[in-house]
Amino acid sequence: MNNIKTYQSAFVDYLETYIVEREPKNLYDPVNYILNLGGKRLRPVLTLMACDCFGEDYHKALDAALSVEVFHNFSLVHDDIMDDAPIRRGQQTVHEKWDVNTGILSGDVMLIMAYQLFENYKPETFQALAKLFSKTATEVCEGQQYDVDFETRNDVTIDEYLKMIEYKTAVLVGGAMKMGAIVAETSEENQNAIYDFGRYLGIAFQLQDDYLDAFGNPETFGKQVGGDIIENKKTYLYLKALEFASEEDKEKLLDWFSAQPDESSEKVDQVKQIFTSTGAKAATKEAVEQYTEKAFSLLKMMNVDEEKKQILKQFGLGLMTRNV
Amino acid sequence: MNNIKTYQSAFVDYLETYIVEREPKNLYDPVNYILNLGGKRLRPVLTLMACDCFGEDYHKALDAALSVEVFHNFSLVHDDIMDDAPIRRGQQTVHEKWDVNTGILSGDVMLIMAYQLFENYKPETFQALAKLFSKTATEVCEGQQYDVDFETRNDVTIDEYLKMIEYKTAVLVGGAMKMGAIVAETSEENQNAIYDFGRYLGIAFQLQDDYLDAFGNPETFGKQVGGDIIENKKTYLYLKALEFASEEDKEKLLDWFSAQPDESSEKVDQVKQIFTSTGAKAATKEAVEQYTEKAFSLLKMMNVDEEKKQILKQFGLGLMTRNV
Repeated sequence: MNNIKTYQSAFVDYLETYIVEREPKNLYDPVNYILNLGGKRLRPVLTLMACDCFGEDYHKALDAALSVEVFHNFSLVHDDIMDDAPIRRGQQTVHEKWDVNTGILSGDVMLIMAYQLFENYKPETFQALAKLFSKTATEVCEGQQYDVDFETRNDVTIDEYLKMIEYKTAVLVGGAMKMGAIVAETSEENQNAIYDFGRYLGIAFQLQDDYLDAFGNPETFGKQVGGDIIENKKTYLYLKALEFASEEDKEKLLDWFSAQPDESSEKVDQVKQIFTSTGAKAATKEAVEQYTEKAFSLLKMMNVDEEKKQILKQFGLGLMTRNV
Repeated sequence: MNNIKTYQSAFVDYLETYIVEREPKNLYDPVNYILNLGGKRLRPVLTLMACDCFGEDYHKALDAALSVEVFHNFSLVHDDIMDDAPIRRGQQTVHEKWDVNTGILSGDVMLIMAYQLFENYKPETFQALAKLFSKTATEVCEGQQYDVDFETRNDVTIDEYLKMIEYKTAVLVGGAMKMGAIVAETSEENQNAIYDFGRYLGIAFQLQDDYLDAFGNPETFGKQVGGDIIENKKTYLYLKALEFASEEDKEKLLDWFSAQPDESSEKVDQVKQIFTSTGAKAATKEAVEQYTEKAFSLLKMMNVDEEKKQILKQFGLGLMTRNV
């Protein structure tokens, strides 16, 4: 079993061979641009790790890993158009550097390229990968739609919110790992266990993201702390606070979330206080721990060496302490 | 062997079972809307016809046919955004009825749905269909990009133009037919022959569209005669006219194509005169005939009953006389 850095560097080497100039340039240059923007390549690393964990040479999973990364970047290109986001990883987004039409069409071709990356696998593996990919990609689209719908709804439930983050974020983590398991041709039980391991870890990670956005250390969090509060985002913290709050606190919270003051620091402080006093902060922390535990409990069911389970567990812990 | 109406009605019945309400509504309602807008369903009919022609029950090709139709409609949704088109088949386009973001995301999920429609075929058939689909879909995207690029280029060659219409339009006609052949599990020779039959017929059809746009009968053409000229579109007629024209005619043509007069009838008349006098009109007509001939010559190579060849030929002739 190898460490994360090994997978990362093998993946980046492989990605470089994939990024070549192609015609028409206006279609493929944006594809190469977004794939070159970097990032930690966590999802493809998970594919390689899962393949290795189930006893197969992880190089065999490079095409599947690349498919996951191409799909992830496709979703970034189209999401950035929908969010009208100018910046991605400190650089211009595709539709900003080129234009919206280029972003749409280059994104479309990336979705097709993701499927093509399965073509070198034998028919049974190809079908299993493509089926899982389609299911996952569909759910990512549905999650994105739920996220959009929630912006204008005032009756979002905790269950709906959990389903949204599961679809929008977590299924791709689970899917990435299951793809490695499929390439390794491990048992269906192992495939499903590693999928759920990734899925629960993905939910835990997203809930932790909600938590850290309000209560994280500004020096290590990476994003602006309080950003979700400023943007009136209906996160787990917010929904739990509404659930637990007294009528008075509820009214205060709804008031803050219907305003966008020029000076936001008072709003952030006040809302954080409500998150804390209502018990939403503690409940969110607990939910993170529960989903992480759920993930780890699946490792026990998996029919792999103890040593490999420990590596998956270390990775999970690293992810949750954001050390990966 | 059945006639077109049989395939059409079998397809439309099957399509109706596919169009069901799904959540999230804002994602799937636009999908159902565009699939319900109608049209002649020519591409899926070709898939069924090809399957029947190679001796297999055409009902087995219904999923592949539906995939072709879903993909075609995906491309309409995204193209209409790019062209800022308000109307499709006499109804509002998706991004007009909803919004651009909805059009992007609903289009994305349609592309995935098209792949999912292959899932009920056995692994070898699934892989063959998905590979052909990916190749075809990639070329359609590339053709769209070339078309966009050509708008701002003044040095487009005839070969480049032919490649553009082949990718943008003709490969999907060929691909639709080859999918039927794959489902029928006919020989690779037959698969490739029917693909090229469809591809050449698709090119002939598109060149004829260029021709009829200027010289068609206003009562039967369906679109506004002269529309391409009014929009300064670099069609086969235009490129051939530039190739054949005297310096004087060339200058006149370039002049007309750099202007968008309020009253277009003089422009249309003058440009048509140049198309005729330079020989571009005759050359376009000849190209249509040559590609149609190329298509029909492939039927000879095909290892199928003479009766079935005649049906394919009748269909081709019907398509070229726009009687289908």
